[in-house]
Amino acid sequence: MIPRIAVDAMGGDHAPDVVVEGAILSAKEAKTAHEIFLFGQEESLNTLLSKHGGENIDSIHVVHAPDVIEMDESPSTALKSKPNSSIHLGLGYVKAGKCDAFLSNGNTGAAMAGALFILGRLPNVSRPSLAGIYPTTKSFSIVMDVGANVDCKPSHLAQFAKMGSIYAEKHLKRDNPIVALMNVGEEPGKGNEQVKAAFEEIEKLEGINFIGNIEGRDLMHHAADVVVCDGFVGNIMLKLGESVATALKQMFMEAIQGNNLSQEEAGLVKKVLGSVFQRFNYEEYGGAPLLGVNGTVLIGHGGSSARACKHIIQEAAEIAPLALPAAIESAL
Amino acid sequence: MIPRIAVDAMGGDHAPDVVVEGAILSAKEAKTAHEIFLFGQEESLNTLLSKHGGENIDSIHVVHAPDVIEMDESPSTALKSKPNSSIHLGLGYVKAGKCDAFLSNGNTGAAMAGALFILGRLPNVSRPSLAGIYPTTKSFSIVMDVGANVDCKPSHLAQFAKMGSIYAEKHLKRDNPIVALMNVGEEPGKGNEQVKAAFEEIEKLEGINFIGNIEGRDLMHHAADVVVCDGFVGNIMLKLGESVATALKQMFMEAIQGNNLSQEEAGLVKKVLGSVFQRFNYEEYGGAPLLGVNGTVLIGHGGSSARACKHIIQEAAEIAPLALPAAIESAL
Repeated sequence: MIPRIAVDAMGGDHAPDVVVEGAILSAKEAKTAHEIFLFGQEESLNTLLSKHGGENIDSIHVVHAPDVIEMDESPSTALKSKPNSSIHLGLGYVKAGKCDAFLSNGNTGAAMAGALFILGRLPNVSRPSLAGIYPTTKSFSIVMDVGANVDCKPSHLAQFAKMGSIYAEKHLKRDNPIVALMNVGEEPGKGNEQVKAAFEEIEKLEGINFIGNIEGRDLMHHAADVVVCDGFVGNIMLKLGESVATALKQMFMEAIQGNNLSQEEAGLVKKVLGSVFQRFNYEEYGGAPLLGVNGTVLIGHGGSSARACKHIIQEAAEIAPLALPAAIESAL
Repeated sequence: MIPRIAVDAMGGDHAPDVVVEGAILSAKEAKTAHEIFLFGQEESLNTLLSKHGGENIDSIHVVHAPDVIEMDESPSTALKSKPNSSIHLGLGYVKAGKCDAFLSNGNTGAAMAGALFILGRLPNVSRPSLAGIYPTTKSFSIVMDVGANVDCKPSHLAQFAKMGSIYAEKHLKRDNPIVALMNVGEEPGKGNEQVKAAFEEIEKLEGINFIGNIEGRDLMHHAADVVVCDGFVGNIMLKLGESVATALKQMFMEAIQGNNLSQEEAGLVKKVLGSVFQRFNYEEYGGAPLLGVNGTVLIGHGGSSARACKHIIQEAAEIAPLALPAAIESAL
């Protein structure tokens, strides 16, 4: 199977330019063979394909989607009033079996609502959830939810645990992935009302390797493969993690100046810093899959660059053949 | 006024040894003149004072408190069954006006419950709150709550905003401190039910400089002097911040080895790293004041070293003369 990826070429702060460029990079690199379907305003996309030298790439196709959903538009209004948007049509291709995955860098709310509306929830899934990636000392952990659900019941968290475990096993190839609940203390019985009840529900689940609570300080030390929390907490943690590199870089640059290093010495320090901070660069991580909908859907960063777009397309090509929706459906 | 500090010498993972050592360091450094009252088992404390060369320091006093509350003991049981604990007697000295501040490195739950029980809440304060310190590119921000209240109503968050603003102004000498609400998006109307309602309540408050929502990525870039959140979110953020330095140190050490640096080059890189990571070391920050109780109370880190104990004693000596309880009482 050669995965066919439906790409929302109009989504993201720097769309469609960087999305087209990312598609070309991905097609040329062809790490995993894949077909790319760019959804957006045809004329504009063809112009950009020529601009970036991608007009003759056979694996890139343009599908005309005249409506454009802006980044700050209300998801519900946009979905109703713009049926020919890149989000609608791209998801429609997945629904119709003409594509194997859909991805968008925004409007995130509209992309998620569209996925729910067009593809639908899997049976028994209460809340589809975004699975984010967190860099750790060992490799990285899955954090879910990272923003799809800011108000969660304990039962939602239990489903996140289950879906996250399947994702970690299938995509990250972790055997018997370690699942933990993000909390303010390690002992059972710690936490707010939500996580105390979630702990009991997760503990009862079969087929997952639940180790109990972890604390904020354990996340970066890779205490678990899958870290369960609601989308409010997960979103804050994820964005805090993204800022670690930028904030520390600034602090280190000041320290380099403060220490009066020579140019050569500063270069050496920057080289070491760069190799670590690379791991905190979300551009390298692709997007977050929306688990629990009936299809493969990935949500990327609004500020995505061409490089980030390349990675999310390649990630979609890797994830689509895993048939995660079927695995989740049979587990829940 | 020479501040008199009541110190729970029995609280913390390494108590009483490090607490006594920290008291001696603080008394000898005498950055701010202060009297230290060590509450705990007299014999043991006197032995430790001799061990660390502090038996003849006039500004250190020992007050016998025979009961010891263990770190993992249930706060409510401990408070009832151990009336002669260091927590009870130390807080009693503050209540009676014989000391100006109380501090403890744990059992945190017992210390907070004790403060509520013995000193009481200030009028109109619904929930006393722990104000934590977060290192930023500029200096540091106050995060509150960091764990005293894991289930919060919107009105509680509004009080945290008010109390945090007073603390930032009085203690950190910030003029018209910037107050922000931690959220998943910047626009008003973003967030879970709790913060959406809190936003509206905080907006109505007079006398604070509320700039609206900030996101996880803004925290370390010093978007605000006071960051408002519930104790569940704040505790996770705070501990995540503490782990940034330890996790990155490990990653950098691996990068230094991976880059085959000479010993001299590695030393240079470590020097630059050290100067930045110092700012993430909670030992340097003293403790978190419990704002909203009728007295000055500081809670330190359970794992505190002697150096951390020294800093929290000195911080208590700085905070006590500010009369924060009176300022909070007149503002609420």
